Amino acid sequence: MKTLIRNATVLTMDKEMHIYSPGYVLTVDETIKELGYESAALPDADEVIDAGGGIVLPGFINTHCHVPMMPFRSLGDDCPDRLRRFLFPLENEAMTKKLVKLSSRYGISEMLLAGVTAFTDMYYYEEEVAKACEELGIRGVLGETVIGQKTCDSEEPYGGLGLAEAFIKEWKGHELVTPIIAPHATNTNSPQMLKKAYDIAEKYDTLCTLHASEMDYELTYFQEKYGRTPIEFLEATGVLGSRLLAAHCIHLTKEDIRLLAAGRVSVSHCIGSNTKAGKGVAPVRELLEAGIPVGLGTDGASSGNTLDLFMQMRLFASFHKTVNHDRSVFPAKEIVRLATCEGAKALHMEKTVGSLEPGKKADIILVETDSVNMFPCYDPYSALVYSANPSNVDTVLVNGRILVRGKKLRHADLRCIREELDDAMGAFRRAAEKWRFN
Amino acid sequence: MKTLIRNATVLTMDKEMHIYSPGYVLTVDETIKELGYESAALPDADEVIDAGGGIVLPGFINTHCHVPMMPFRSLGDDCPDRLRRFLFPLENEAMTKKLVKLSSRYGISEMLLAGVTAFTDMYYYEEEVAKACEELGIRGVLGETVIGQKTCDSEEPYGGLGLAEAFIKEWKGHELVTPIIAPHATNTNSPQMLKKAYDIAEKYDTLCTLHASEMDYELTYFQEKYGRTPIEFLEATGVLGSRLLAAHCIHLTKEDIRLLAAGRVSVSHCIGSNTKAGKGVAPVRELLEAGIPVGLGTDGASSGNTLDLFMQMRLFASFHKTVNHDRSVFPAKEIVRLATCEGAKALHMEKTVGSLEPGKKADIILVETDSVNMFPCYDPYSALVYSANPSNVDTVLVNGRILVRGKKLRHADLRCIREELDDAMGAFRRAAEKWRFN
Repeated sequence: MKTLIRNATVLTMDKEMHIYSPGYVLTVDETIKELGYESAALPDADEVIDAGGGIVLPGFINTHCHVPMMPFRSLGDDCPDRLRRFLFPLENEAMTKKLVKLSSRYGISEMLLAGVTAFTDMYYYEEEVAKACEELGIRGVLGETVIGQKTCDSEEPYGGLGLAEAFIKEWKGHELVTPIIAPHATNTNSPQMLKKAYDIAEKYDTLCTLHASEMDYELTYFQEKYGRTPIEFLEATGVLGSRLLAAHCIHLTKEDIRLLAAGRVSVSHCIGSNTKAGKGVAPVRELLEAGIPVGLGTDGASSGNTLDLFMQMRLFASFHKTVNHDRSVFPAKEIVRLATCEGAKALHMEKTVGSLEPGKKADIILVETDSVNMFPCYDPYSALVYSANPSNVDTVLVNGRILVRGKKLRHADLRCIREELDDAMGAFRRAAEKWRFN
Repeated sequence: MKTLIRNATVLTMDKEMHIYSPGYVLTVDETIKELGYESAALPDADEVIDAGGGIVLPGFINTHCHVPMMPFRSLGDDCPDRLRRFLFPLENEAMTKKLVKLSSRYGISEMLLAGVTAFTDMYYYEEEVAKACEELGIRGVLGETVIGQKTCDSEEPYGGLGLAEAFIKEWKGHELVTPIIAPHATNTNSPQMLKKAYDIAEKYDTLCTLHASEMDYELTYFQEKYGRTPIEFLEATGVLGSRLLAAHCIHLTKEDIRLLAAGRVSVSHCIGSNTKAGKGVAPVRELLEAGIPVGLGTDGASSGNTLDLFMQMRLFASFHKTVNHDRSVFPAKEIVRLATCEGAKALHMEKTVGSLEPGKKADIILVETDSVNMFPCYDPYSALVYSANPSNVDTVLVNGRILVRGKKLRHADLRCIREELDDAMGAFRRAAEKWRFN
């Protein structure tokens, strides 16, 4: 199957940041075959997509998500100490395997429609998330959660360790799904269990992701118990290595940053979730200066509300320019890099995806510039960061397959996906009402 | 003409924050006639709008804009000292009456499609903006700019004073257009001319709007020249009164806030523009605690890029929760108030618009909840602030007239409006290239 995308402003996001305008991209099966300036003699293809002068770029990479948390969206958003007072109890009472399955379909649909072509996930019943990735065609980097308490898919604390290992064995080598392991956070696992989780990542040559340096009380806990920061604790525990993808990392000392860099750890920066919760702004400029790979993440719909990277890019610009008191830091171009090629690097997938280059996988999106918010468009990076929203995503290819065309899913019916989820949410809704007023 | 909107979650935004769900609103000509819970016996109407369970609320009020600046969008976004190095020279060289006219049509279309039903504007050739409001049916609070330099519509410094007075005389009493006066900023006018502008507002019983406490160099200038803050300077100049709408007000002392409250000044808070420029975050919590009316503003497309209040609400939440280090401050409901009824108060229009109540003008919008980003929707305020974007606006009424239906302008052709603007932008584009690389 050959697909030709033409009449586009092609942002390759390669090392030299080549732009071809007007440009074209040719994909053959799952791979990018060639791309460049458009000329009279364009290659033949089975399907030709006229981009109408729109912006073509690599798909967005969401480096931190809990995609099955769709049923939580717009619940208790402004509730203090929300995770412990509201989310954990509701999750334990009302989250089910069926809801994980149906929510994953819904959340993945939302991501595809917003131009996200790969995402990292941390949740329970992760095999259901994997099946939804396979079914809908998105690329998933998925980790079963390990946590020292009863969960919705394990009666025993740390049941996730066994589930995660089985999940990795089952899905290892899949074309779209990369199974990883996801100890929940620095403070919700014992050091021994964190080490065990990391060892499983080593054993299967994969990644380990967790929440780190996110909560005020997490910092206090480690200070009081060990006289250490969470990052120093991770280092002492032996898990601060190159397989680690640490989400959030809001509260970091200079020494923390040195340790993260020395360990070759990657960071997922969730600016929307972090700031909506009033937690603070991770020192991304300093992380990047230390050579640490940083990607952007939406977090789950309970914390970040939407699963698109446009909102993250816009918030990123506003927050990091304000924190640095300088409108010229992080020009739009660099922010689009974080959402694409730098995200790929953070997930160790930079040889496969994250830029448009011959031989890479064909994860490609088209953002139209016909809508009212996209004109004029002197600078496509500026338009993506400061003007665009998910409704501007017209076409999405993952692994060479056209999954979204004309702003609609091509191989799935969003209305059915929503109705099935809605129908399955009765018990969850009733439980939510109860916890809400506690 | 009677219009019935039914099958809606009606957020009245009245003092008691009544919600009718499922609810209806009936408008007769330009006025809201009745609203309430839906029952079997709904009133008759000439046109019935089935809201499909969506959210119906008062139209958004954009309290600070430069709508004719559309041609600047995505130009030099990350350029330091942009106003003086880039915007002023380009504006003086390339902005024309024709561009103001065509850009106003375009920007007003963008606002209507995003659910903005009233906006405050400050620019040149303001009569062209007024004509575009009349033509497209939006409510405009429009001020001709007064500034101590040559401008695109006046060879002489302060030519705007005469133009503004003539503009106010011409448009005073118009159903949709409220003419005001707009001295540019604290530091771009002499104290005498600021006072003259304010006196004109007094004379014609209208508002006076200006940029205040926005720029670092503005603060330095007043400190060095007068030993005062910009707000203290305005007070000493005799313009800190209830007719003043001060935009930005980022850098305020406690004494400044006291003076603003004592003078009964209104503030327009432009969080998107301010933070994208790395300038800082206005102390809105303290302003509101002092009883100062605060509305939200997009600023022009050159600074804020999009003209919708969804982005402003989301940025507002993230920034003010982070600055206050508390996820529970400014719950979504309060942020929707700022974008509607509080904005109306800031413009002295709270008796006319800003809430859905019998007798008020029918400025009403319908935000659909069918799109992928809007489900589930337990809390409509949360959905508006944290999930929605302009593409969710389905229907817009201003003054009882249906201007947007099914996400499209009903009485205008956006494609023509864009083409006319695009065709007229040739000289502007060439000038932009030149200044860009200076």
